[in-house]
Amino acid sequence: MRTAIFPGSFDPITKGHEDLIRRAIPLFDKIIVAVGINTKKQNLFSLNQRLDWLNDVFKEEESVFIDSFEGLTVNYCKAQNSKYIIRGLRSSADFEYEKQISQLNNIIGDGIETIFLISQPKYSHISSSIVREILKNNGDASSLIPKQVKP
Amino acid sequence: MRTAIFPGSFDPITKGHEDLIRRAIPLFDKIIVAVGINTKKQNLFSLNQRLDWLNDVFKEEESVFIDSFEGLTVNYCKAQNSKYIIRGLRSSADFEYEKQISQLNNIIGDGIETIFLISQPKYSHISSSIVREILKNNGDASSLIPKQVKP
Amino acid sequence: MRTAIFPGSFDPITKGHEDLIRRAIPLFDKIIVAVGINTKKQNLFSLNQRLDWLNDVFKEEESVFIDSFEGLTVNYCKAQNSKYIIRGLRSSADFEYEKQISQLNNIIGDGIETIFLISQPKYSHISSSIVREILKNNGDASSLIPKQVKP
Amino acid sequence: MRTAIFPGSFDPITKGHEDLIRRAIPLFDKIIVAVGINTKKQNLFSLNQRLDWLNDVFKEEESVFIDSFEGLTVNYCKAQNSKYIIRGLRSSADFEYEKQISQLNNIIGDGIETIFLISQPKYSHISSSIVREILKNNGDASSLIPKQVKP
Amino acid sequence: MRTAIFPGSFDPITKGHEDLIRRAIPLFDKIIVAVGINTKKQNLFSLNQRLDWLNDVFKEEESVFIDSFEGLTVNYCKAQNSKYIIRGLRSSADFEYEKQISQLNNIIGDGIETIFLISQPKYSHISSSIVREILKNNGDASSLIPKQVKP
Amino acid sequence: MRTAIFPGSFDPITKGHEDLIRRAIPLFDKIIVAVGINTKKQNLFSLNQRLDWLNDVFKEEESVFIDSFEGLTVNYCKAQNSKYIIRGLRSSADFEYEKQISQLNNIIGDGIETIFLISQPKYSHISSSIVREILKNNGDASSLIPKQVKP
Repeated sequence: MRTAIFPGSFDPITKGHEDLIRRAIPLFDKIIVAVGINTKKQNLFSLNQRLDWLNDVFKEEESVFIDSFEGLTVNYCKAQNSKYIIRGLRSSADFEYEKQISQLNNIIGDGIETIFLISQPKYSHISSSIVREILKNNGDASSLIPKQVKP
Repeated sequence: MRTAIFPGSFDPITKGHEDLIRRAIPLFDKIIVAVGINTKKQNLFSLNQRLDWLNDVFKEEESVFIDSFEGLTVNYCKAQNSKYIIRGLRSSADFEYEKQISQLNNIIGDGIETIFLISQPKYSHISSSIVREILKNNGDASSLIPKQVKP
Repeated sequence: MRTAIFPGSFDPITKGHEDLIRRAIPLFDKIIVAVGINTKKQNLFSLNQRLDWLNDVFKEEESVFIDSFEGLTVNYCKAQNSKYIIRGLRSSADFEYEKQISQLNNIIGDGIETIFLISQPKYSHISSSIVREILKNNGDASSLIPKQVKP
Repeated sequence: MRTAIFPGSFDPITKGHEDLIRRAIPLFDKIIVAVGINTKKQNLFSLNQRLDWLNDVFKEEESVFIDSFEGLTVNYCKAQNSKYIIRGLRSSADFEYEKQISQLNNIIGDGIETIFLISQPKYSHISSSIVREILKNNGDASSLIPKQVKP
Repeated sequence: MRTAIFPGSFDPITKGHEDLIRRAIPLFDKIIVAVGINTKKQNLFSLNQRLDWLNDVFKEEESVFIDSFEGLTVNYCKAQNSKYIIRGLRSSADFEYEKQISQLNNIIGDGIETIFLISQPKYSHISSSIVREILKNNGDASSLIPKQVKP
Repeated sequence: MRTAIFPGSFDPITKGHEDLIRRAIPLFDKIIVAVGINTKKQNLFSLNQRLDWLNDVFKEEESVFIDSFEGLTVNYCKAQNSKYIIRGLRSSADFEYEKQISQLNNIIGDGIETIFLISQPKYSHISSSIVREILKNNGDASSLIPKQVKP
């Protein structure tokens, strides 16, 4: 069985995340969307809220599971018997960052592979940090987040 | 059955290509390494020579097939009943180029997905064009190409 | 009167070009869409064909004029009494290229300014070269070009 | 009347900012240089000090006004009846960042356009953060800031 | 005598740093590896620990000296009678950052030159921040740091 | 003796080249500015003309020698007993290209090192190809080339 992890903060999940995960579904038998818990980072939404939204968005996808984890992503992958990480790329800045992380994960994770999808043009300008910035300023972010996310 | 196409000129195949294809094998049931024929581009090695080397490098891989095609990659994908293209990324320059091509293939190919792997650090400086440059100047390119390739 | 030049090959005009020019209309009193003639570059469409399509696309815009020119863009700007060039940016590769050209034009053009707009996400993957590639392979490029362009 | 906003922290204004604003003057009937107030960001200079310097630098420019604002830039644009934001680009890193912000502003600001100028070569290495770094270490930043700025 | 400074945080020194410094040795008569003290940045390892590791790694290199400094790098260079700074480049993100810093140092340092080496492919994915991330999560970073570094 | 090669086409030498070479002089005991002969590339100026200009520009520099070579740069380096190549970097596009070439030269040249300098801001927009473009269109390129170059 081919299992893949899609790790992230999902603070909150965006339409960009949703699209990437839906595009990855046919590639794997099982996808775990996993919220990485970073106690040092201040989140806008609680872990429970973020998990609820993820569960809601993917509730009709039988091969998608929602979870959370602490520590290194590669350790979580091993614990889940997954050899694959899925990540999206929007820009060359994303690329430079993800390249370093994925090469590292490959080394410290004994061959764990990161599979990349490039964001569709209509989603390539969306990021959780921009959604948070809009929400903090009482703006309308509804065109950037799944309809299930009601901040 | 998940079939993927790994298209390229392979003029000649490099250790970078070989590594990417081997890493993609566990992800798909069948991978077709397909030499795109571009009659306007002048190649250093004949199509037959390039196909021979590819066959030789992957002769022990049961799920890897070698082929060639003319015209748009997406048309070849449809003819092969493949919904996936595999490509490698070495640098942000690669990323910018591949982003444009993959977004296009997605549109004109009715949803054909391109799956990206990032080159391992030890192969990220290798390209066919540099191998050709070395060979044209009678240099030694053996550290850059599979041992089966004897130019 | 603020006059701006939007130079290009327009071989053929794409939806990306059209959108950029329409967005620039409110900024200037007059915009000249100018086809640069480069006798060394082999075009897919004749100069007349390209001019016809441009005229057709902008026929209802009173402040947009279609023209062609030979030689340096800055000389054409001076001949047209225009102090502005308009260009679009899709990617950081575009940026690096346009930066060099615009800084040069500023120097050799005695202060000619280039004004940049960034492509909308839905058009950022479109280029004339990709349209030509599709057309040469008998593909369907209709989602990438204005409806007036019938290649 | 074409009004444009040039938003920033201006902590402090640099020769790079000054040059960009002066180059934008002929393009618009009115330019508002607007200091964005971010209560979470620790500034080196007080808001009043930053506004004083801006007023001083542009006191002879009749079409340039100095102001400050809180919240989203697009909301401030609407309050000022401005449909344009002006921003400078120094590097491809700037480009990637500004691209995301400008595409967002276009969406949440109902069509607000961002107009970009590329920094002149002689100013492309200047940033407020580097000026602050020099000042904090008692270095001489006078070649990087307008003569009116006396930190 | 050609003296060069290799400044950094070295928190901790990585195999990437070590390789760059060893490659720079034949170029200069004396190289000072200098730990910049930034009291605002929280380090994982104490200054003494970082200096000890640096001394240990280069103890057999007669032309390499270990030191620490506060304030601007260019002031430290002048105090050491050094006209050269050595820096490594791994990616275009590094390049954009280092370009700005080196152009600044050249201006405020009265002509101080920064000499760049590009990381070898096998080290281009290594950074101190990633080493720290692994160590904080109790991972094994031994393939990324010199054998003398025992965190 | 530390000898370095500064290879290039110099078609023609620009103020950017001149500045980089002058900055490299104090670093090496001997610098050979070497015109690479590429019989497949069509040059604007003859090899003799390019060599004459280089000799003229550096005639007062005792440690700078002018030469030409055919074939791989690393072979020329070995023939000249030089272990160093000097190259300039203007942009991240330059960086990506030079990174690949320098890593290759290091491998096929048995440890030949490439030393990089970053162009000064005032020269970072200058390239031989842009100079040629201006000259072909009868423009004035005098601000971009050394005064000794009279095309």
